[in-house]
Amino acid sequence: MDPENTKKAYLYTHTVQYYETDKMQITHHSNYIRWMEEARVAFLHDIGWDYARLEEEGLFSPVIRLDCSYKNSTTFADVVEILVRVKEFKGVKLVIEYEMKKQDGTLVCEAVSEHCFINGEGRPVRVNKERPEFYEALK
Amino acid sequence: MDPENTKKAYLYTHTVQYYETDKMQITHHSNYIRWMEEARVAFLHDIGWDYARLEEEGLFSPVIRLDCSYKNSTTFADVVEILVRVKEFKGVKLVIEYEMKKQDGTLVCEAVSEHCFINGEGRPVRVNKERPEFYEALK
Amino acid sequence: MDPENTKKAYLYTHTVQYYETDKMQITHHSNYIRWMEEARVAFLHDIGWDYARLEEEGLFSPVIRLDCSYKNSTTFADVVEILVRVKEFKGVKLVIEYEMKKQDGTLVCEAVSEHCFINGEGRPVRVNKERPEFYEALK
Amino acid sequence: MDPENTKKAYLYTHTVQYYETDKMQITHHSNYIRWMEEARVAFLHDIGWDYARLEEEGLFSPVIRLDCSYKNSTTFADVVEILVRVKEFKGVKLVIEYEMKKQDGTLVCEAVSEHCFINGEGRPVRVNKERPEFYEALK
Repeated sequence: MDPENTKKAYLYTHTVQYYETDKMQITHHSNYIRWMEEARVAFLHDIGWDYARLEEEGLFSPVIRLDCSYKNSTTFADVVEILVRVKEFKGVKLVIEYEMKKQDGTLVCEAVSEHCFINGEGRPVRVNKERPEFYEALK
Repeated sequence: MDPENTKKAYLYTHTVQYYETDKMQITHHSNYIRWMEEARVAFLHDIGWDYARLEEEGLFSPVIRLDCSYKNSTTFADVVEILVRVKEFKGVKLVIEYEMKKQDGTLVCEAVSEHCFINGEGRPVRVNKERPEFYEALK
Repeated sequence: MDPENTKKAYLYTHTVQYYETDKMQITHHSNYIRWMEEARVAFLHDIGWDYARLEEEGLFSPVIRLDCSYKNSTTFADVVEILVRVKEFKGVKLVIEYEMKKQDGTLVCEAVSEHCFINGEGRPVRVNKERPEFYEALK
Repeated sequence: MDPENTKKAYLYTHTVQYYETDKMQITHHSNYIRWMEEARVAFLHDIGWDYARLEEEGLFSPVIRLDCSYKNSTTFADVVEILVRVKEFKGVKLVIEYEMKKQDGTLVCEAVSEHCFINGEGRPVRVNKERPEFYEALK
């Protein structure tokens, strides 16, 4: 009964593009930040709250912090599997964690992104109180 | 009395960033398209019509066509000089041309971008009639 | 017996990412250039000549020209279908064409990319003579 | 006699490009990671060890960790001043810190990047022992 295993998670797959590589012949480190967004968007879509729906409801979630540890490099045409899940959310600050592996199981990156929620006017939104349905979906 | 020489022009300088290189150890070709935008923005600023002013006036200029010929490669830390000027503008379609050289004079790229003008609702704007001041600045 | 229909073609699908949008709330025009590369890579993989194999064989194909016409805008989460095929190839200069549509059939972009072939030392390669197997696959 | 103030530092300036903005009409968060690289490259150049020299000497410094806190947003045409300096370096792991402010003094981002050093074959390099001259320049 490990509660860790019962959390919602989503496995997103990204294939490294040629334009994501750099002169060191590996993926430029800034792209992992973009893949985190791709995986997050797919995860939110999967639980029924895609960005379009959030923005229609006037809910925006800027990134307020990133912490990203690069473990091994990847390069063009590598297929990267990104396990994304909610690490912590009590209604104000959403913490999402990411584990990226190559298909041979090599760990390439471990990361965390933190988000707040604001409405269209930039006012902070307490999701647990003002959007309880979304809060439950994320918990 | 070469009228070509009397056109307004602007020389913009871009230093190639590490993240702009790719696995072939040269600048990825997509970045030249972004430098064209950098140069265009600087040129419009120079003639007194920066994007901020244009957008305040509700004037947007999407790219409708690009034609870009790559002559020689560049790579990290190269300094690229981009000569930008209006090639053609009769009030509706703005054609801008770009000539990019390395500091040793090597031609690296010749390009053209075409733009139309729309207002905030997406309606086409005839700049010569509706924004004569901007039209004169570009001619 | 339309020979146009008998050419090899490949339909590649790209979903617009949030980081590909810009302040005009549409996809930034530079990204279409990157999608052309994605589609080209997938097409070459499909005919059995992926970039990895080409680079192993010491064959590189830099872009020497791009011509790209933007017909309609796209934005975040749009699914773009890119039809890619060889427009012309006589052994030296490869011309590839791209037609991009949204899923509702709206044409968003028509483009052409031109490529030459060089070996690891930068010497031009006549593919029809030096790599006849690859030449046949592309014809 | 605050030793913090006696450390080498470098102030790098980046003007936000249109293509760096996103649909939220602010700078996309992934770009700050790229600006950190721009600032780091300029800092190393300033102390006499530009990337070109490092790579000629067969010394590469991949990013092994990023920690980035976003304090306020920026947008197109904002001028961002990035103060970059060495936070910690004992010869193996280089920790660089970044403080980004708008010209009105608003803090926009605080970040740290961690780097190791490897040679062309990917073997770790103890900079304090194997490249004492570079080590002294960074201290």
